[in-house]
Amino acid sequence: MTTRTALSLTDKLSLAREASRALAQASTARKNAGLEAIAQAVEAGADRILPANELDLANGRENGMSAGLVDRLTLTEARLEGLASAVREIAQLADPVGDVVRGSSLPNGLQLTQVRVPFGVIGAIYEARPNVTIDIASLALKSGNATVLRGGSAAEHTNRVLVGIIQDALESTGLPRDAVQTIDEFGREGATQLMAARGYVDVLIPRGSQGLIDAVVRESKVPVIETGAGVVHVYLDESADEAMAVDIVVNAKVQRPSVCNAAETLLVHRDAADRLVPPVLAALAARNVRLHADERARALHADAVPVTEEDYAIEHMALEMNVRVVDDLDEALDHIRRYSTRHTEAIVTNDYARAERFLAEVDAAVVMVNASTRFTDGGEFGFGAEVGISTQKLHARGPMGLPELTSTKWIVRGSGQVRG
Amino acid sequence: MTTRTALSLTDKLSLAREASRALAQASTARKNAGLEAIAQAVEAGADRILPANELDLANGRENGMSAGLVDRLTLTEARLEGLASAVREIAQLADPVGDVVRGSSLPNGLQLTQVRVPFGVIGAIYEARPNVTIDIASLALKSGNATVLRGGSAAEHTNRVLVGIIQDALESTGLPRDAVQTIDEFGREGATQLMAARGYVDVLIPRGSQGLIDAVVRESKVPVIETGAGVVHVYLDESADEAMAVDIVVNAKVQRPSVCNAAETLLVHRDAADRLVPPVLAALAARNVRLHADERARALHADAVPVTEEDYAIEHMALEMNVRVVDDLDEALDHIRRYSTRHTEAIVTNDYARAERFLAEVDAAVVMVNASTRFTDGGEFGFGAEVGISTQKLHARGPMGLPELTSTKWIVRGSGQVRG
Repeated sequence: MTTRTALSLTDKLSLAREASRALAQASTARKNAGLEAIAQAVEAGADRILPANELDLANGRENGMSAGLVDRLTLTEARLEGLASAVREIAQLADPVGDVVRGSSLPNGLQLTQVRVPFGVIGAIYEARPNVTIDIASLALKSGNATVLRGGSAAEHTNRVLVGIIQDALESTGLPRDAVQTIDEFGREGATQLMAARGYVDVLIPRGSQGLIDAVVRESKVPVIETGAGVVHVYLDESADEAMAVDIVVNAKVQRPSVCNAAETLLVHRDAADRLVPPVLAALAARNVRLHADERARALHADAVPVTEEDYAIEHMALEMNVRVVDDLDEALDHIRRYSTRHTEAIVTNDYARAERFLAEVDAAVVMVNASTRFTDGGEFGFGAEVGISTQKLHARGPMGLPELTSTKWIVRGSGQVRG
Repeated sequence: MTTRTALSLTDKLSLAREASRALAQASTARKNAGLEAIAQAVEAGADRILPANELDLANGRENGMSAGLVDRLTLTEARLEGLASAVREIAQLADPVGDVVRGSSLPNGLQLTQVRVPFGVIGAIYEARPNVTIDIASLALKSGNATVLRGGSAAEHTNRVLVGIIQDALESTGLPRDAVQTIDEFGREGATQLMAARGYVDVLIPRGSQGLIDAVVRESKVPVIETGAGVVHVYLDESADEAMAVDIVVNAKVQRPSVCNAAETLLVHRDAADRLVPPVLAALAARNVRLHADERARALHADAVPVTEEDYAIEHMALEMNVRVVDDLDEALDHIRRYSTRHTEAIVTNDYARAERFLAEVDAAVVMVNASTRFTDGGEFGFGAEVGISTQKLHARGPMGLPELTSTKWIVRGSGQVRG
């Protein structure tokens, strides 16, 4: 292992850029060998990773870190095994680099081919979740990209050990160790410089709280792919099947309430309210969901507090759900247009025309009929791991897998053509 | 024609957003009818367009506008006919909306489809070129998007008439007239507000000088697609055919020197210098190209001034060209990496391995073998008109046609699936 100390942030960015050139030309076999070496190193490195993690956890507890954050920061032997197997899954995925996106022969004989190429250097700014360090570095490696990681000072010790382990693994398989860099040691100033690093960093991905994402979008001069919050709705249409409605609403709310694809608001067609509101709300209440309901819903289920405008607009991220009875599909669409963060929206219906209208008119990354919103996920979609879920419309929308970490390049093959 | 006065900028943005919803659902037939109506209105509207243009031209001349800018601002009967036929060409192109990008059936029975959808509202900030008003509004209409246009105060009168004509044409075919808006009347403040209009505008496209583009990239809170300058290189490898080298270099430099895909620097392998430098530079000189050459090239062609570092870094946009003799392909690749704006780069060679290495290693939107760099163009690539040439890596890279004006949406069709 090479030891280098006191590299400036610009040095690190330059090294990442240089490494990205070698990585862009690396064969799939070599990148997969690098991933396997990372998986083995994560498994074998528990004796270095866990003490560093313990140090971060001790600091976190001292600084009053919430239980949820402590949980996300914590690594265990079992979690390291899970991380290693996620890396091996990424090795199994198809390599997007070199894929031909489209092509044609022009009338003048020029041969045009649009091929996938790595971005180059991917920057990531995220909060104290060490698994993101491994996930993003591995997805970036498979797609031929170098990474510059700013993982949050609360996980600084853990991330430093993880990045060192990744760098050693890369070197052991003939890949450039500089392809993965952490800039945690530069603190907030490091994040600021990363956001200004045009020419060094091709794309920046923020992952974490809405506040973090908003700050990156506001400040970054490097192009950003926004991953965002989910104010997610489930609309029960007049024709919704009762059992399906109960299953989908309960799953969408209860299965993992702290994540972005969990539902926040239930909308029910008034002509189905008598039939559906009592069983669905009873099922939610039985699972300890606190209900915020409008007047018409409360008439059918007394054990709910009145819903407010603010409830409709926020991500509860907890066992709380808003309920509103609407006059028709139009009112449901209006409500969604007003409060949706354009992440995932679902309708439960057996009416063909309304299903198609909902799919066509709702403007969101993912629109569903008769399925739980919890399926909006790179793993569930079959992408292997995911870099995040894009809620913007540029470049990538929805769960981002390997192709979303690539750009394209036009190749033009000629035989002396000039323009007339 | 409805007349509305004194709409605020926020009013206009809201109207565009509302119109975008109708446009997103409009059939291809209706959008094509709207385009035909625009083409007819441009042809029939000369008596209103040309006097407004004359007013802008008079103001421009008074303010000392350069001859080049005056030329770009000028409309004539013939140019209006050209614009109308460009609109009709866009009507002939395939509609990207609804195209299925990919899809799959998941093991749990969910049907996944990724379909193309319009962005919603496209903002454009550009300089005094009234043809861009028609081009962008038409491309956006075909791809189901509303547009908010900030065309530069120097073309304000022309753009106001053009946008009025477009709005009337839209209305006459049952499309929302608010789908195309100009905000020229709000001056610089309008551009500033447009760049801050998150939630109203989905993507912002700056077209014009490097200074304009840099300012938009620096200030915009709305996602930007950067179109940029071209410091474009042609590298003559050892094995380059002499006649092909002369044709391609002359075409790349001379055919239209003021545009971004024109070449700025010629690199020549030293073992081909004696054979290629004299005829290529003689051909350039015969076409009044002023040559900036390094010592080795000047030894073979006396009539050149010494080239400077600054020459290598700028877009001449004129009949001027830099010439450098390099030791080998590696030195050529180093030079390109250092000075390229990653727009278009070309090699002239008959060596298979070097051609493939150049294509693989050069990081640019378009990389060519044995063809003039002037082919980097939406029209030449068969995209019909183009919105611009993206020099960034996110979302779109190279000439942007209709698919580049769309986002995607994931459609999930289920039968009651919940996540386990």
